[in-house]
Amino acid sequence: MTISSPASAPIDYDRILATIAAEVAPLLTQGRVADYIAPLAQVSPSHFGMAVVTLDGSVHTVGDAHQRFSIQSISKLFALALAFSLIGDEVWSRVGREPSGSPFNSLVQLEVEQGHPRNPFINAGAIVVTDILSSRFVQSDIALLQFIRTLAGAPDLEFDVGVARAELRTAHRNIAMAHFMKSFGNLVNPVDDVIASYCRQCAITMSCVELARAVGFLVNGGVLPGSTHDSPNTRILGASPTKRLNALMLTCGTYDAAGDFAFRVGLPAKSGVGGGILALVPGVLGVCVWSPGLDTHGNSLAGSMALERFTDLTGQSVF
Amino acid sequence: MTISSPASAPIDYDRILATIAAEVAPLLTQGRVADYIAPLAQVSPSHFGMAVVTLDGSVHTVGDAHQRFSIQSISKLFALALAFSLIGDEVWSRVGREPSGSPFNSLVQLEVEQGHPRNPFINAGAIVVTDILSSRFVQSDIALLQFIRTLAGAPDLEFDVGVARAELRTAHRNIAMAHFMKSFGNLVNPVDDVIASYCRQCAITMSCVELARAVGFLVNGGVLPGSTHDSPNTRILGASPTKRLNALMLTCGTYDAAGDFAFRVGLPAKSGVGGGILALVPGVLGVCVWSPGLDTHGNSLAGSMALERFTDLTGQSVF
Amino acid sequence: MTISSPASAPIDYDRILATIAAEVAPLLTQGRVADYIAPLAQVSPSHFGMAVVTLDGSVHTVGDAHQRFSIQSISKLFALALAFSLIGDEVWSRVGREPSGSPFNSLVQLEVEQGHPRNPFINAGAIVVTDILSSRFVQSDIALLQFIRTLAGAPDLEFDVGVARAELRTAHRNIAMAHFMKSFGNLVNPVDDVIASYCRQCAITMSCVELARAVGFLVNGGVLPGSTHDSPNTRILGASPTKRLNALMLTCGTYDAAGDFAFRVGLPAKSGVGGGILALVPGVLGVCVWSPGLDTHGNSLAGSMALERFTDLTGQSVF
Amino acid sequence: MTISSPASAPIDYDRILATIAAEVAPLLTQGRVADYIAPLAQVSPSHFGMAVVTLDGSVHTVGDAHQRFSIQSISKLFALALAFSLIGDEVWSRVGREPSGSPFNSLVQLEVEQGHPRNPFINAGAIVVTDILSSRFVQSDIALLQFIRTLAGAPDLEFDVGVARAELRTAHRNIAMAHFMKSFGNLVNPVDDVIASYCRQCAITMSCVELARAVGFLVNGGVLPGSTHDSPNTRILGASPTKRLNALMLTCGTYDAAGDFAFRVGLPAKSGVGGGILALVPGVLGVCVWSPGLDTHGNSLAGSMALERFTDLTGQSVF
Repeated sequence: MTISSPASAPIDYDRILATIAAEVAPLLTQGRVADYIAPLAQVSPSHFGMAVVTLDGSVHTVGDAHQRFSIQSISKLFALALAFSLIGDEVWSRVGREPSGSPFNSLVQLEVEQGHPRNPFINAGAIVVTDILSSRFVQSDIALLQFIRTLAGAPDLEFDVGVARAELRTAHRNIAMAHFMKSFGNLVNPVDDVIASYCRQCAITMSCVELARAVGFLVNGGVLPGSTHDSPNTRILGASPTKRLNALMLTCGTYDAAGDFAFRVGLPAKSGVGGGILALVPGVLGVCVWSPGLDTHGNSLAGSMALERFTDLTGQSVF
Repeated sequence: MTISSPASAPIDYDRILATIAAEVAPLLTQGRVADYIAPLAQVSPSHFGMAVVTLDGSVHTVGDAHQRFSIQSISKLFALALAFSLIGDEVWSRVGREPSGSPFNSLVQLEVEQGHPRNPFINAGAIVVTDILSSRFVQSDIALLQFIRTLAGAPDLEFDVGVARAELRTAHRNIAMAHFMKSFGNLVNPVDDVIASYCRQCAITMSCVELARAVGFLVNGGVLPGSTHDSPNTRILGASPTKRLNALMLTCGTYDAAGDFAFRVGLPAKSGVGGGILALVPGVLGVCVWSPGLDTHGNSLAGSMALERFTDLTGQSVF
Repeated sequence: MTISSPASAPIDYDRILATIAAEVAPLLTQGRVADYIAPLAQVSPSHFGMAVVTLDGSVHTVGDAHQRFSIQSISKLFALALAFSLIGDEVWSRVGREPSGSPFNSLVQLEVEQGHPRNPFINAGAIVVTDILSSRFVQSDIALLQFIRTLAGAPDLEFDVGVARAELRTAHRNIAMAHFMKSFGNLVNPVDDVIASYCRQCAITMSCVELARAVGFLVNGGVLPGSTHDSPNTRILGASPTKRLNALMLTCGTYDAAGDFAFRVGLPAKSGVGGGILALVPGVLGVCVWSPGLDTHGNSLAGSMALERFTDLTGQSVF
Repeated sequence: MTISSPASAPIDYDRILATIAAEVAPLLTQGRVADYIAPLAQVSPSHFGMAVVTLDGSVHTVGDAHQRFSIQSISKLFALALAFSLIGDEVWSRVGREPSGSPFNSLVQLEVEQGHPRNPFINAGAIVVTDILSSRFVQSDIALLQFIRTLAGAPDLEFDVGVARAELRTAHRNIAMAHFMKSFGNLVNPVDDVIASYCRQCAITMSCVELARAVGFLVNGGVLPGSTHDSPNTRILGASPTKRLNALMLTCGTYDAAGDFAFRVGLPAKSGVGGGILALVPGVLGVCVWSPGLDTHGNSLAGSMALERFTDLTGQSVF
C-alpha cells in the first residue's frame, strides 16, 4: 500500500543503493562472520553487495552484488516453494507456520509439539521439507538446484562441495533433530540421506543479483517474471499460496528476530548465515543484500540495516 | 501491492460482507465463548457483526456491527499507540517486539528474559504498557478511554464496570506476572494500581463500526482520517512508527496464532477474547469483525474465517 | 547401616568438630553471603559454628555454635513437620515429593503441573504448607514459632522483625508464585496473609545447638528425645512418617544440589540462605553447621564441606 | 540405623516375601507392560518374583524369582559401577549427579547444561557412561556383560539378541540425544557404536536372584560378598565411592519418581522398564522384585508396592 502514487517521481534505486552502501560501511566490521565451519569463517567481513531487480526486469546494484556467496538458509525458501508447489497444503501436516520463539526452545518445542517443527524456516522444519522433497525426487538436492537455476535464470549455479562437506561433518545437532523427529514418525526417508541433501542445499552459492532475480516469482504473484526467461509467465505457485509464502517470510524468515525485522524493515525476507538477506516488495521488486558479519540472531548486521534504510529511503514497506 | 488497479471495478463491500456473513454462519456455534468470567460467558455465540470503514469515511456493515461488546485485548493496541505516542522508542526498553511462541512459555520467557515481556500484545507486555501510562497519568484507565473516544469519534464510550470487577477478581495470574516483573525491576507503579487499570481497559465496550473507525489513524499513516473528526488531520503517530505498529500487529496481534493468521489473512490485526478482531489494510480501510465463539488460541473462530474470506474476496492483503 | 559396631571405640565428636573447623577455615571467605536483604548482607562471612546433639542428649560444639542466626529455609522443615502432624498425607494433595530440578524451571513446573509445587522445600511448596497452617491457626507464624520452641526446648526463640520486614519488601517473586498458585486454586487464604506469615517464619533466629536439638524428633523416630524436655517421649510424628520426612530431606532438602549433597554427605539435611545446614543421622544424632558464605546453589559453602568431612570422619552416613 | 537391634528376633524373610506376594497379587494386572518393542510387549503381566540375598549369602525367594527377564535400565547401575571403578571421579566431568526432574525437561536440560546429562541413570547419562566404557574396551558391551557375570556369579548370563535388535530399531530418540551431546563435544566414540553397545546392555537377561546377588558389592561396602565367589573379598569400589553410588541410586534411580520412591520405600534402588527393581539395605541385603506391569513413571507398579511393604514389614530403611 506504500507504493508511491503514479504522480510521484520514479525512485532512483542506483542513488539509494549508493547512499546505503556508504551509510552501512562502518557496520561491516561490527558483525561476526559465521565460524562453525572453516569455509565460512574464511570469508572477509568487508564484503558488501546489494541488488534490486524490479518486476520489469531492470537491475540495480552496488558493491559485490555479482559475487557468489553461500546462500545457506535462504535455500529454505526455495525448498519450501518447491515442496509447496508439489504437494500444496499437505506441507502443513508436517510442519507448522508459527514463529519459533527463542532458539533455546527449539528442541523443547519439538518435544511438546510431538516432532512437528514450528515452521519451515527453522532447521528442523527445513529438514522435514527436505524429507518431503526426498520422497519425490531420486536426488532432492539436484532437483532443488535445478529449480533454483530456473528461478534465477542461471543454469551454472552449483553446490560448493567444500562447504557441503564441512556442514555434514558438523551436523550433529541437525542429525539429532532428524532422529528426534523420526522417533515421532515425522521423517520418512533415512536420516543420513535427508541430512546429506539438506547440507548440500545450504551449500549452493549465488550472487545478490541472482537471488533478487530468483525471488521474482514471489514478487509477481507466483509467476516467473517474463522478461527474464525464455518461457514467459510460467506459474510456479498460485496467487494465494504466493501471498501466504510471503506472509511466512515476514513472520518466520529471519530466525528469532522476525518480529524486530518486521518492525524495522517491514518486508518479507529470508536470511542465511552466509550473510545474505533476500527480501521483496510484492508487485514491485526483489532485493538482496550480502554482508558476512552477523548479529547475535544470525542475520547480517549491515544487511539488516541496509534493508531498513532501503524501506525508509524508498518508502516501500508492506505496511 | 494488492490494491486493485485503477482500471478495476470498485469493490462492492456490502455484497462481500453479506456473502461472508452467510458463509460463516455455520461456524458461529462451533467456537467456545470465553467463560472465565460470568459477564463474558453470558454472551450469546450467535452474534455476528462486521464493519468496514474506508479511508474516505464510507461505512459498510453486516449483522450486529453496531452492537457494543467487550473489546478485551484489542485495548492493548490502543494502549500501545498511546504509550508509543508519548515516549516513542523508549517503550522498547521495557518490552520486546517478538512473537511469543507458545502460551506455555510465557512465564519461562519472563524468567529467561529477566522480566522483559516478549511483546506489548501479550498480557505481561500490556501490563508494562499500562505501567508506562500509569507513570504519565493520574488515572491511566480514564486517559486511555479518552484517547479511544477521540480515535473512534465516540464520546460516549464507557467501561463495563461489571466486566472490570469480574476481571479483577480472577486476575491472579496477571497479578503474579506483575509481581514477577516487579521482582526484575520492570514495574514502576504499585501492582494493585496497574492491574486495576489494566482490568478496566479490557472492559471497554465498543461496536465493530467504532473499532473500524478507531483504527483509522493506522490506516492513514498515523493521522486521524479527517472526514470523521472535527479537527481534521490530527497526527497521532509519525508515518514510520505507524508502519511499525502495523508490523507488530501482524507478527504479534493474534496471540500464539499470529503466524497462521498472517498466513491465512495477511493483514495486521488485533484480537480479543470478547470475540472481536480488528484489522486494517494500510492506506485503504479498517475492518472489524465480532463473533463471540473462540478457537483454541483465543481468537474468534468465525471472525478469523470472515477475515480470511474478506482478503480472498477483495484481493486485499499486504502481501 | 554405617554406624560403628558396638565393639568400636566411641566416636570423639569434640576432636572431630575441632578438626573440621580447622580444615574448613580457608573456605569461609570463598562463599558469598546472601545480599538480597540488608540484615543478611551485614552478617560477617567469618562466622563458623557446628553442633552435634546425640540421641542421649550429649552436646558437642565448635566455634559460634551458640550464636543465633536467621534460619531462613530451615523453617520449611519445621513447617512441614507441623502440617504433616496435623493433616497427614493430605499434605500431598497440595504439594509433591519430587526434587525440583533446576531453579530455572520453578515457574514452568508450576505451570505444567497446574499450580502443584514440586516439593515442600522449594519456596512455592513452603508457601502452600504455610497456607495449610494458616487454615488451622489464627496466627500460623506464632503457631510455628511455638512448635519450634517446643522442639528446641528454647522458649525464648523469636522472629527477627527487621529480617521479616525486609523479606516482605522484597517478596515480589514469592507473591507472584502465590498468586499463580491461587489462579490454579491451590491457595486458600489471602495471598498477603500467607506471604506475611511465610516471611516471618524465615526470620526466626536460632543457634546451631538449638537447631541440632530441635531436629531430635526426626533422629528419634518421631518422638521428642526425652532427656531434653519436661514431658518425655512426646510423639510428634509416627515412625513411618518420620522416615518419610527424612527421605524428603535427602532428596529435596538442599535446593537444586540435593543429588550432589546426598552424594557427598549422605545424610538427610535442610539448608537455609542464612548459612545454616541442619542434618541428622537417624537413630544417632542431629548436627547443625553455620557459615554464612554460600555456594552457587544457596547452600553454605564451608557448611557443606564440614558435613562431608563429618560423615567421612565419623563413618556415619545412611548409605 | 533401622537395623533390628541384636536383641530382636531374626527377620523371617520367607514369610515376609510370601505375605508381600499375596498382597500385591491384585496389582499385577493394573500396570502396563512396556510395549515399545515386541519382545517386551509379549511378556505376561502375571509374572511376579522377588528375591532377597543377605550379606551372609542366604537366599529367600517367592514366585518367579529364578526366571530371567530383560534388565533394561538396571544395567545402567552396573555400567556406572564399572566406569566409576575405572576412572573414578572423572566420570563427573561428563555427567551430573542431580535428579532429572520431569521427563519433559530431558532435552531442554541437555541444551541448558551444554550436553552434560543430569545423571548417569537417565538415558542420556547412560549413553555417556557407555561412551566412557567404549573408550576403554574394544567391545564395551561384552566387557560389561563379563563384569555383571562376575558380580552375579553367573557365567552364563547373556544378551537377548532379539531384544537388542528391537531396541536398536526404535532407538531414534537415543540416537538423537547422542548426536546432540556429540554436538556439545560430550561423546567421543562414533554414535552408532555407542548406541549399539547401549542397546545390547539393556538387553541382558537376569533373574531376581541373580540381580540381588549382583548388587552384593554395594551392600558390602564395595567388596564382593565372599561366600558367593571363588576369590573372596574382591574389592570393586572403595567404601566411600560405594556409599556415593548408593546415594545416587536413592536420588536418581527410579526415573522421575525418585522422590516419591525414597519417600515410600526409603532404599537405594534402580528400576528398568522390563519390570525389575533392584534395591539394597546397606550392610544387610540385596533385594530384587520383578513384575512387568509399569506405572506411569516406568517403574514396576506391583514391584514398587512390594518394596514399600518390604521396608514396612522388615523395618528396614536407610532413614
